[in-house]
Amino acid sequence: MKATTIYAAHDVRLEDQPDPTIQKPSDAIVKVVATCVCGSDLWYYRGDNPIKDPFRIGHEFVGVVEDLGSDVRSLRKGDFVIAPFMYSDNSCPHCRVGIQSACSVGGFWGGPDRDGLMADGGQGEYVRVPLADGTLVATREIPDPAMVPSLLALSDVMGTGRHAAMAAGVQEGDTVVVVGDGAVGLSGVLAASRMGAERVVAMSRHEARQQIALSFGATDVIAERGEAGEAAVLRLTDGVGADAVLECVGTGQTMTTALAAARPGATVGYVGVPHGVELPVRTMFSRNIGVAGGVAPVRQYLPALRDDVLSGAINPGLVFDLELPLDEVAEGYAAMDERRAIKTMLRP
Amino acid sequence: MKATTIYAAHDVRLEDQPDPTIQKPSDAIVKVVATCVCGSDLWYYRGDNPIKDPFRIGHEFVGVVEDLGSDVRSLRKGDFVIAPFMYSDNSCPHCRVGIQSACSVGGFWGGPDRDGLMADGGQGEYVRVPLADGTLVATREIPDPAMVPSLLALSDVMGTGRHAAMAAGVQEGDTVVVVGDGAVGLSGVLAASRMGAERVVAMSRHEARQQIALSFGATDVIAERGEAGEAAVLRLTDGVGADAVLECVGTGQTMTTALAAARPGATVGYVGVPHGVELPVRTMFSRNIGVAGGVAPVRQYLPALRDDVLSGAINPGLVFDLELPLDEVAEGYAAMDERRAIKTMLRP
Repeated sequence: MKATTIYAAHDVRLEDQPDPTIQKPSDAIVKVVATCVCGSDLWYYRGDNPIKDPFRIGHEFVGVVEDLGSDVRSLRKGDFVIAPFMYSDNSCPHCRVGIQSACSVGGFWGGPDRDGLMADGGQGEYVRVPLADGTLVATREIPDPAMVPSLLALSDVMGTGRHAAMAAGVQEGDTVVVVGDGAVGLSGVLAASRMGAERVVAMSRHEARQQIALSFGATDVIAERGEAGEAAVLRLTDGVGADAVLECVGTGQTMTTALAAARPGATVGYVGVPHGVELPVRTMFSRNIGVAGGVAPVRQYLPALRDDVLSGAINPGLVFDLELPLDEVAEGYAAMDERRAIKTMLRP
Repeated sequence: MKATTIYAAHDVRLEDQPDPTIQKPSDAIVKVVATCVCGSDLWYYRGDNPIKDPFRIGHEFVGVVEDLGSDVRSLRKGDFVIAPFMYSDNSCPHCRVGIQSACSVGGFWGGPDRDGLMADGGQGEYVRVPLADGTLVATREIPDPAMVPSLLALSDVMGTGRHAAMAAGVQEGDTVVVVGDGAVGLSGVLAASRMGAERVVAMSRHEARQQIALSFGATDVIAERGEAGEAAVLRLTDGVGADAVLECVGTGQTMTTALAAARPGATVGYVGVPHGVELPVRTMFSRNIGVAGGVAPVRQYLPALRDDVLSGAINPGLVFDLELPLDEVAEGYAAMDERRAIKTMLRP
């Protein structure tokens, strides 16, 4: 099969690899129908995260079950499945309270499991899925091809946007500010809107992204950044600030803006992997601003989001504005790196 | 009248001061029945917070309304009232969502209001109360003298402990760890227990404080601190960590312990004024640990806590283990500073 390996900054290659096979009785083999490139893959692609050894990259995919280990109970060959961006058993104490991203026996695609066995990356033709019963969520039927982008978006960005909104404690009727207009930020707009926020303020200065935000339920757009953006939030909220803030980037500047946009008593739900973030604890304390979030437990949200997609209630696949064959994975990265695309979908 | 001024570290003096009078139509004059010394007063007493100019100290008191400005509607002369540790109008946008500690026109006892008019401190015979309608909470009748310590505890420590538990999101059935065995930590134990926590773990190495914690509903006591204390929490929770953690001290070490005691997905509710705290954002992110809290909006909790005290459901006054006449205020500070007392009550 073909699968993607990242060797160094700006060096991703689709190469021949052995077809994966069942290694443990809890494994499944999934034939990938669609996969995509994540903003967090770009941390490696841009050299912001070091690459010690080349590794199989990609952590978002949907596909069809090709083979099953003998212990797998909830899946059948031929099922269409959505994979979250981490695998998990969905039954340990952390999974049971919905934090599958802290699963005691789970792990990351492309990395080693507890026995040192390497998992496949998602940007390939096939993936061996560890802990398949706990990890994969199936649809009842093979979905309409038009649904595939939206189901793929549930692998990471939509679940991550939802986690930001949950962590921020979005309530019906709230005014919510979303910092970041990447695929996660846009998904955060959609999640907050779906959770009943009355006013959703998207902070975005890119026309195309503003349009998606508006179609996802944003009621206001703020194009300014930094202090001007913070002042604009206060103007929009009569000087009070937002009831909930979603921080979907992870830089020091975006966190500063998020904290400043929050009204006293509000929580900043943050899902952007922190790079250069320092939390100003005394300011947070004096203003009663909380921060919550982290590596999104996408698996928690998958069943409900799947149903929302299949019913047509949400259409998170709109974040994909570039579709390429898997052969052109390198161009998929380059397009996102150069901001020619919000998010690239790849089809084997 | 007599009132207390702090001049410098270890120098508090009860001195003659002019009797306060109504300065604004929203004022009330309260004759103090009981007041007390706060752990946060000790930051000044110990020289940890600088004292630029001497100021009237004390922010906890209960008393009887002696006089009222012409705009005050909800109070009558002779009412027994509880004062929260900040004054607030209870009607601005921040007050309306329950964050009275961020009131747009509120302020601190002993400090200037928006017009520069100084408020009295609480450790005196009389206090001019700004924004009396929004600030003071009255009892229906003059309470039994035995209730006074518990009503006084609502001025700060009980409401602050309650805020820690609220910020930490304590739910029925939870396992809750409380870091800190001062009056606020002990109040946090009581709040968590009253909110339905199944297991409340008090981290305390002082026998007398352990006893109060147990009488407040603690089910377990951990005497170890630092890494040994964190390991003990994990042992008690089968390696999982606590569902909610209350950080009631405010040092770097106690925050580290609080974060380590939290299970993935949990929130540390913190109410100890941060001194030397740095929040480890990447660890918090990778473990999905939130932090929330700040200057407690005691006014939000006062009506319900008052009713809990009057019905006998809670007895937070047990935190007072030293009672002195106001004349001996200096000894009240010294006893707390030297850890001979948990909390000193003073009677004019």
